[in-house]
Amino acid sequence: MKEFDLIGRYFAGGGHQRKDVLVGIGDDCAVTTVAENQHLAITTDTLVGGIHFFESAPAKSVAYKAVAVNLSDLAAMGAEPAWISLSLSLPKIDENWLADFAEGLYELTRYYSVQLIGGDTVHGPMAMTITAQGFIPPENALKRSTAKPGDWIYVTGTLGDAGAGLGILSGEIETTAQNRDYLVNRHYFPTPRVAVGTALRRTASSCIDISDGLLADLGHILKASGCGATVHVDRLPLSRQLTECLGEGKAREFALTAGDDYELAFTVNEEQRGHLETSLSSTNVKATCIGQITGHSGKLELKLEDAPYPMPSKSGFEHEF
Amino acid sequence: MKEFDLIGRYFAGGGHQRKDVLVGIGDDCAVTTVAENQHLAITTDTLVGGIHFFESAPAKSVAYKAVAVNLSDLAAMGAEPAWISLSLSLPKIDENWLADFAEGLYELTRYYSVQLIGGDTVHGPMAMTITAQGFIPPENALKRSTAKPGDWIYVTGTLGDAGAGLGILSGEIETTAQNRDYLVNRHYFPTPRVAVGTALRRTASSCIDISDGLLADLGHILKASGCGATVHVDRLPLSRQLTECLGEGKAREFALTAGDDYELAFTVNEEQRGHLETSLSSTNVKATCIGQITGHSGKLELKLEDAPYPMPSKSGFEHEF
Repeated sequence: MKEFDLIGRYFAGGGHQRKDVLVGIGDDCAVTTVAENQHLAITTDTLVGGIHFFESAPAKSVAYKAVAVNLSDLAAMGAEPAWISLSLSLPKIDENWLADFAEGLYELTRYYSVQLIGGDTVHGPMAMTITAQGFIPPENALKRSTAKPGDWIYVTGTLGDAGAGLGILSGEIETTAQNRDYLVNRHYFPTPRVAVGTALRRTASSCIDISDGLLADLGHILKASGCGATVHVDRLPLSRQLTECLGEGKAREFALTAGDDYELAFTVNEEQRGHLETSLSSTNVKATCIGQITGHSGKLELKLEDAPYPMPSKSGFEHEF
Repeated sequence: MKEFDLIGRYFAGGGHQRKDVLVGIGDDCAVTTVAENQHLAITTDTLVGGIHFFESAPAKSVAYKAVAVNLSDLAAMGAEPAWISLSLSLPKIDENWLADFAEGLYELTRYYSVQLIGGDTVHGPMAMTITAQGFIPPENALKRSTAKPGDWIYVTGTLGDAGAGLGILSGEIETTAQNRDYLVNRHYFPTPRVAVGTALRRTASSCIDISDGLLADLGHILKASGCGATVHVDRLPLSRQLTECLGEGKAREFALTAGDDYELAFTVNEEQRGHLETSLSSTNVKATCIGQITGHSGKLELKLEDAPYPMPSKSGFEHEF
């Protein structure tokens, strides 16, 4: 057995076993079945040590995040997660690190009934690529390109927390121990909004997950849909911890521009708006209306109590489509 | 647009367009359909610069190989390739390199009617992970675990060429310009045996692709099937170029132990043996019988004209299961 085949032992079996996995880890390919009335959603995300996470970060959080960002993409499409493949590149074998990594991975896959169906383990710089797959009924995919002028813009949870958590970890932000715990956890262990994504299938007109920051990601919806938007910064959902830590002005800036929250941003037309509360009632996740889609293609206006509000300098929003 | 989003422009559209891809590159996920009477085969392989390929290797060959090794895994399962996702990590943006890389990738995906459906481009060490997916009719998957004593062992093409190509590139092996071209090409541009894999669906009793060397990979079949094997080294298919370059003895050693050929090793029972020629007639690929599966679990015997032949020291074969 080669040194790096050893890594595979930490993932042998794949954790949660699904009936739709006919061949799991250990052959040239996994073999699975897809139900007749389902389409398949597929996404891939890579995290590189030193770029997407601190190499000193707890291994459990690294694995958790690597899975979460992929499940978040499935959620943003309205898909129900099913299987993941993991490619793990490591400079050396540290058995404690691997045990913690496997624990973080399986914590999330167990919760969402996802099976690890295969992958690759190689010697190289610390990095991991996960491909995640899930199911969507035909015509239910939540695309970026289908927002319409007049649709209301919503976001789940609170924004900016993960960015503040990163600032705390890198020593740029100081706060109380309690706020630190909350914000750093939001950075290390983002919650993929899987239940919200599937609940929105027939209600939302478009959807994206917030990985690069609200303005950047809302910009993707506007670009794909050929629309503009007005966002009211006084309606941005902020956690008490973020506001205590940064003050209201800076908290709003983080909510607009900081990445890694993995909340969903979605649009709902006037007719469906009345169904939204019912759709989300089973999810225990709050969604907040923060603005409205406009017909001004490529224009994103910020407002504070109906007065213009300046665009943060590093908004990540592309004005020129 | 971020610097690394630029990379995505080289892959925009995904090349060959398939009708079963409903949403391609550019949303949170791809969305695809799987026909009712098909199972899905899924595989992931990672290549790291400096470990799996020379960073100075032609970008076209790097892309070609990254796709080929994944299609080879599908072939070894008997699957027909359909879609790939690409995660590409690069230390810097070199537009010429990217254009060549895209050319190598699309050359192979066009040939096999495979669509690039998404992926990720990140700043990091040079590395790439491809996840490939394909279709197999139910009950047709070619597993490693289903070889039986008495089955005949076959390999496609010729063995050891890619290993010699690597030796030439690293300066350890010298040969004529013509042999060099042939062997280095076998290293840079391995041919995934896709047509053979699908042709073997009802004929082979087990199958694997030769990535780590014949003995190591045949060992995986033996381990999974709980069998042993006898391999006749005088029956190993060797290219004229390899024998000219290394001499017969060393050529046999390379055929037994060198990796990266991406030929298929498979087993066929006595009853199906008569159908093999017919099954492979449309593929233009020659398969050579090199030995037989035995009931001696974990035992792999080499023979030369029926006399015992010593196991090469770096065989990659695991004696202890």
